[in-house]
Amino acid sequence: MTIVTLTTDFGTLYPASLKAVILSICPGTDIVDVTHSVPHADIRAGAFALCSVIEYFPAGTVHVAVVDPGVGTSRRPIVIHSGGHYFVGPDNGLMVPAARKLGAPEVFEITNRDLLGAVSSTFHGRDVFARIGALIAKGMDVKEAGGRIDDHVDLDISGVLVRDDCIGAEVIFIDDFGNVVTNIPRDLISKKVTPGATLHINSHNIPFLRTYGQTAVGDLLCLVGSHGFFEIAVNQGSAARTLGLHNGDRVSVRLPGKTA
Amino acid sequence: MTIVTLTTDFGTLYPASLKAVILSICPGTDIVDVTHSVPHADIRAGAFALCSVIEYFPAGTVHVAVVDPGVGTSRRPIVIHSGGHYFVGPDNGLMVPAARKLGAPEVFEITNRDLLGAVSSTFHGRDVFARIGALIAKGMDVKEAGGRIDDHVDLDISGVLVRDDCIGAEVIFIDDFGNVVTNIPRDLISKKVTPGATLHINSHNIPFLRTYGQTAVGDLLCLVGSHGFFEIAVNQGSAARTLGLHNGDRVSVRLPGKTA
Amino acid sequence: MTIVTLTTDFGTLYPASLKAVILSICPGTDIVDVTHSVPHADIRAGAFALCSVIEYFPAGTVHVAVVDPGVGTSRRPIVIHSGGHYFVGPDNGLMVPAARKLGAPEVFEITNRDLLGAVSSTFHGRDVFARIGALIAKGMDVKEAGGRIDDHVDLDISGVLVRDDCIGAEVIFIDDFGNVVTNIPRDLISKKVTPGATLHINSHNIPFLRTYGQTAVGDLLCLVGSHGFFEIAVNQGSAARTLGLHNGDRVSVRLPGKTA
Repeated sequence: MTIVTLTTDFGTLYPASLKAVILSICPGTDIVDVTHSVPHADIRAGAFALCSVIEYFPAGTVHVAVVDPGVGTSRRPIVIHSGGHYFVGPDNGLMVPAARKLGAPEVFEITNRDLLGAVSSTFHGRDVFARIGALIAKGMDVKEAGGRIDDHVDLDISGVLVRDDCIGAEVIFIDDFGNVVTNIPRDLISKKVTPGATLHINSHNIPFLRTYGQTAVGDLLCLVGSHGFFEIAVNQGSAARTLGLHNGDRVSVRLPGKTA
Repeated sequence: MTIVTLTTDFGTLYPASLKAVILSICPGTDIVDVTHSVPHADIRAGAFALCSVIEYFPAGTVHVAVVDPGVGTSRRPIVIHSGGHYFVGPDNGLMVPAARKLGAPEVFEITNRDLLGAVSSTFHGRDVFARIGALIAKGMDVKEAGGRIDDHVDLDISGVLVRDDCIGAEVIFIDDFGNVVTNIPRDLISKKVTPGATLHINSHNIPFLRTYGQTAVGDLLCLVGSHGFFEIAVNQGSAARTLGLHNGDRVSVRLPGKTA
Repeated sequence: MTIVTLTTDFGTLYPASLKAVILSICPGTDIVDVTHSVPHADIRAGAFALCSVIEYFPAGTVHVAVVDPGVGTSRRPIVIHSGGHYFVGPDNGLMVPAARKLGAPEVFEITNRDLLGAVSSTFHGRDVFARIGALIAKGMDVKEAGGRIDDHVDLDISGVLVRDDCIGAEVIFIDDFGNVVTNIPRDLISKKVTPGATLHINSHNIPFLRTYGQTAVGDLLCLVGSHGFFEIAVNQGSAARTLGLHNGDRVSVRLPGKTA
């Protein structure tokens, strides 16, 4: 029984059409919504969302991902194969960080129009990606979709600037708790700071801890989140609201001195 | 393996009871949420939502639809059979446009109380419609539910007023992108305008295009959406916010002159 | 085919990791979202949500419930077995009202680390509860998880104060319609009032009815909701907004005199 996941910025109505297409082609598929609440057209946030769950799905899973502001223009539809997983979506970088987390991505352009029915100019999630994803879930060789390409759009969401004791990063995702997830990966921060230290972040002094309940209700803290990225939180509150931060905003993290 | 879809205005908690009832009666059913975010008691918006996905589901699918401000009053519970699909819900027009899209609807009133357990006066979605839907998904003949009726409530969501070069329409749905979907069907607009023309809509001049990315980020455009209705959008923005439009608001579309 | 339900305050992204873990261990499981919109860290609201659906699921269902402000601190992970259902989550009372509704709960502390992989300090929903839930769904004896305990955290959500003709209660849940659900159970109110009576609630006179459509659109009413608790509503409107009520707020209900 194959799993097909969906990661989109579609909100509440449009995902159902993708599911209808998938279940029509491949009845009984287990469809898992990763999220349909990626901020509209925010490719980096979508890439983070997919990244944050990818390692918990078994090999063979097909990931349909659609944050696609270029739908109906010249951007290419692609399939990525990596680490035994398949990714189907637009060639705009969205799926690259997750695919790279699993192995060395092979990228294929979807060119075989015989696999498709009528294709609208505004909804390739339904008319192209769900369809190709379901065919792969059903056992189709990915090479049936089209030939390999080497010039796909690349994306690195964890590109931060490190200088001396300062990390220049950005807000990559704000979760439903209001936790502010930055693009600083676990390895970078863990090498430099140990729990208990105090970090200076955008002019706030914030303790670096292991979990939320280690500080008082309503207090700021920072930690490495379960997704593997450095995160600023308020215990039982919203760090995004407390700090006035939004997706894409800059975050400056000053590490404690050498004695930390 | 049968599919049961759910279309409601229930929000986040109440759909689970429907799923519990369905899976108790018919284990292993593939349940697909069309949406549970229909604006509260907005039958026309619910009818549009179901319409917009119906053709992508295979024959045999059972659609449970519950936007039901009259629950517990004298409005009748019905089943509609059309084009090999089944629709179960209140007799208030909600399911009629989708059913008619598939063929000639046969309507049955649910009168067989022996099929039901305890029926609350506030939640027929759980106590009547999910149960009857699951029984049909399991193979029950729809005639077991009750006899045919001819006087069900009718609903046409695409009733617009066309005079000379002007279409008087209404907002039928605002999607999660903020796209403003009108009740003008594809055929009507496509016969009258070609992509590239400029339409005068509620005192804005808006280009009629094929897809969102054909205009600059933040600019207004209009097009036939993937759901088959005429839609006003802002590329990577919210047309509903830009134009201050809500469900049910009037939309006046002036077409270009004869030279267009 | 086993059902696993999920009840959390996670919002839109984090539930997918739980589903990935469950489907990896127990492919083909029917996963039902009860809700992921429990107000952040509101254990009483989460307990109500689970309570409101529990009786519609068949015996054998596994309920993973995670409203867990104490994650990563000393609070214990537990499994409750009651009435043939299993509940997996934190020992903070969240699952107790639903479990008690089904029978006499047996509680087990999860101590067998051999069943787990890497455990983060912030996301036991994914690393502990989903995993143990899936193993139970797959057939594991609950005693494999750990030994029985008698000192689990208790919770009674329906603890109201009754004095003469007045009930002192609280808002336990506000649903997506804006209906204000109190923690007054059906039995208490039904013994004291009959439909048609007028109740005096927080300085408003409100008719006690059987269903929403029995009053005019926009008018206040109160009734026993489909979840079995006393509820204040506005027909096709939001009682929460009309009355300015939030979760945890006090509600004072004065019953009609002895002649009612």
